[in-house]
Order: sequence, then C-alpha cells, then structure tokens
Amino acid sequence: MTQQTLENINLLDGLPTDVIEELNKQCRWKWYDAHEQIIDRQADSTDVFFIVQGRVRIVIYTVGGKEITLDDFTEGKQFGEMAAIDGLPRSASVMAIDRALLAAMPQPRFMSLLTGHPIVAERVLKNMAHIIRISNERIMDLSTLGAANRVHAEILRQARENMTDEDEAFISPIPIHSDIGSRISSTRETVARVMNDLARKGFVERQKNGLIVKNIELLTQMVEEVRGD
Amino acid sequence: MTQQTLENINLLDGLPTDVIEELNKQCRWKWYDAHEQIIDRQADSTDVFFIVQGRVRIVIYTVGGKEITLDDFTEGKQFGEMAAIDGLPRSASVMAIDRALLAAMPQPRFMSLLTGHPIVAERVLKNMAHIIRISNERIMDLSTLGAANRVHAEILRQARENMTDEDEAFISPIPIHSDIGSRISSTRETVARVMNDLARKGFVERQKNGLIVKNIELLTQMVEEVRGD
Repeated sequence: MTQQTLENINLLDGLPTDVIEELNKQCRWKWYDAHEQIIDRQADSTDVFFIVQGRVRIVIYTVGGKEITLDDFTEGKQFGEMAAIDGLPRSASVMAIDRALLAAMPQPRFMSLLTGHPIVAERVLKNMAHIIRISNERIMDLSTLGAANRVHAEILRQARENMTDEDEAFISPIPIHSDIGSRISSTRETVARVMNDLARKGFVERQKNGLIVKNIELLTQMVEEVRGD
Repeated sequence: MTQQTLENINLLDGLPTDVIEELNKQCRWKWYDAHEQIIDRQADSTDVFFIVQGRVRIVIYTVGGKEITLDDFTEGKQFGEMAAIDGLPRSASVMAIDRALLAAMPQPRFMSLLTGHPIVAERVLKNMAHIIRISNERIMDLSTLGAANRVHAEILRQARENMTDEDEAFISPIPIHSDIGSRISSTRETVARVMNDLARKGFVERQKNGLIVKNIELLTQMVEEVRGD
C-alpha cells in the first residue's frame, strides 16, 4: 500500500519534515484508474497535482477528437501548475496511464508555498523553462521535418535515453505505434510504415521485450540533413 | 532622447523608485541598430534584456538557415529569462526589428530580484505560462492545419486585435507575406497564393495603408472546421 505522503516529490525535495507533513494534510488524496480522466481541458479547476504513484499523460484534443500527446509524467512529478499560476482554464487534458495515486493541492496553498520557499519557486521556473525548450524543439520539428523524419527524430530521442553501447540502444517495452503517432502528430499507419522501413534498413530490430536501435550516429545524420532543408 | 531607466518595464511595475534606480545602474545599456543580432542561439550568455525602446523578434533558425518566428516583443517587455533561470544555452535568437534601446541585467541580479520581490517572480511565472499556452496552440495548429488554414488562422488572430466593426477589422500596415510565412512556418509564395485566394473570395481587401478583413465570422468557421479534422 502506497503511503499518502509527498516526501518523494522532486519539487519539494529538502523541505523540513514538518512542512511536508502539513502539506500532506492540506491535499485531497485520490486513486485514479488506468485511462481515467484527471483534468479536463477548459475546466476551471486550479489545483496542482502531485504524482505519488503511477504515470499520467498530458494531451490536447482537436475539435474532431484527434489526440496530440504533449508529454508523459511519472512518480515524483507534478502537473497543473499553469492554471494555478495564471488562473486561466486548463491548457491541456490529463489522464492516468496506469492506476495512479495523486495528491491535489489547492491553488492558494501552492502559491504560498512558492512565496515561502524560493527554492520551490526556482524549481517551478526551471521546470517551465524546460517545457518551453521542448515546445520550441517540437515547433521546429513540425515546421521543418516530414512525418517520416519526425518518427526518426522521436526514435532517436527515446534511444538516447536508453543507450546500451556507443552506437546502440534498447527501448523497453517496444514503443507503440499509436503512441509515437500521437507524440509526433502523425497517424499509426504512417508510423508503422516508417518503422518497417527502418527495420528493413537495419536501424531497428524488434525483440520480444523491446526494440534494439542500431547505427544511431548514422540515423542522427539522416535526421539532421533533413532538418537543414 | 530616450532615458536610461527601467521605470516603464511591466515586470518591475510598482517597485520602489530607489530599487528601480539601483537596478538602472546595475544594467549594461546599449542601442542596437535595426536587424542587429542581440542574442545568438547557443551562446552561453545569461543576461536578461529589458526593452526600453524599439521592438525585437524572437526567432529560431534551422541548420539550413530557414527562419521561424516565435514572437515579436515591444517596449516594456523583457526577454532572455530562460537561460538566466536554467543556465542552459539560449533557446532562440533575438534580433532588433527597428533601432532599440536595451538594458542587460546580469543573471545573479535578476535571480535575486525574483527572490527579493515575490510579485516579480509571480509575473515571470505568469509570463512563462503564457508562452507555454501559445506554444501549445501553435503545436496544435501545426499538427492539424494545412498551410492555407494556418494563414487563415494567423490573419484571424491579427484581425481580432484590430476590430473596427462587429465582423470587420483593419490591419495596418499591410502584413508582409514573408513575415506571415515565418510566423506560421510556411513560405512567402504559399502565403501570397493564399492571400490572393482570400481577396478573390472577398475576405480581405488591400488598401494603401492597411488590409481590410471582412466576414470574420465565416472565416472563423472555416478555420474551425479544418481544425476539427
């Protein structure tokens, strides 16, 4: 049974135990089922959520229901700061990927936490700067790369987080085509086609429990050449 | 002659006069010519810049030199907070649009300003939240709209800031095709083609000193229909 405590939340690292214990009591605690919606875009809630167990996915939906994944967050992270900070409607929807225990902190408590502990405010600022950098890269990719090259760039990104050798990586479990599609704003079919092409050319090899990525340096060159058009 | 003072910077609004005067002395002041580069992407400078006079453009360049405009900033705004906050290389390049007077504040002074004045920190947080929201919309547009509809969406955006009547707007001066192209990640030629099409259909009418946009409600519907695919 997972304990209802914020002691492993990165944002709060180093705060005194009594402050953490007080915050624990000021949050609403709730278990979410896999695929359950946590935040509805355009909703006017302003709570900040801390992930104590499980994973969540940040998504935006087009009017027609197309799903665009912005990011996945895991244990120790938080989400929902944006609406808490600017008071505007939620900028994205959030759903649980698997069963998740979340702590919802009311907006006024979150803001007083920032004012009272500059280290927390600094971490929130750094976190937002990171999101802006990632967004800029994505805008650049969307603006300059075709769908095939966006798949290559995404596989490379995942490979770099899972290097097993100088020029090789092992991504486990095997990335799901529709997940990649959602992340790079393309379709499952396009991703499947590009992945088959990469397998044929020897860049990826499917295993039972994961995907081997090879010739990473060459793949990097390919992406950068197209990016430069 | 513009005075070298930060008193009209929005971020610092409400700070005591003696704090402003001290900050004035702690900045490096410089005039930039039109089109002069202010920040080079990937440079390791960490100053924060305040715009006392003039306008600047935030851009990212692809390896091949394609220019993607992220935003234009004008008097009273600041830029360069990202590298000051996270210490990483600049996320974008910045150049002067016209002759501009800027104050460059050293990173340590900026960070102590945030810690010492929570209202300033809160404004920086709000500002970054705004940038993230804009980026999300742009990612959504790039992911769901074709180039023609991105032009429509951009014209609508500018029209809504310049309404003259319930269903009509006047954008002055006439938007430059290459500027629109840079902003929506398309070419000058594509923009020209789409704008001619809009003129033929009666949505825009070119005047000597500006662009009339008509039937804004209908144009909005057109954009939303495509966005929903």
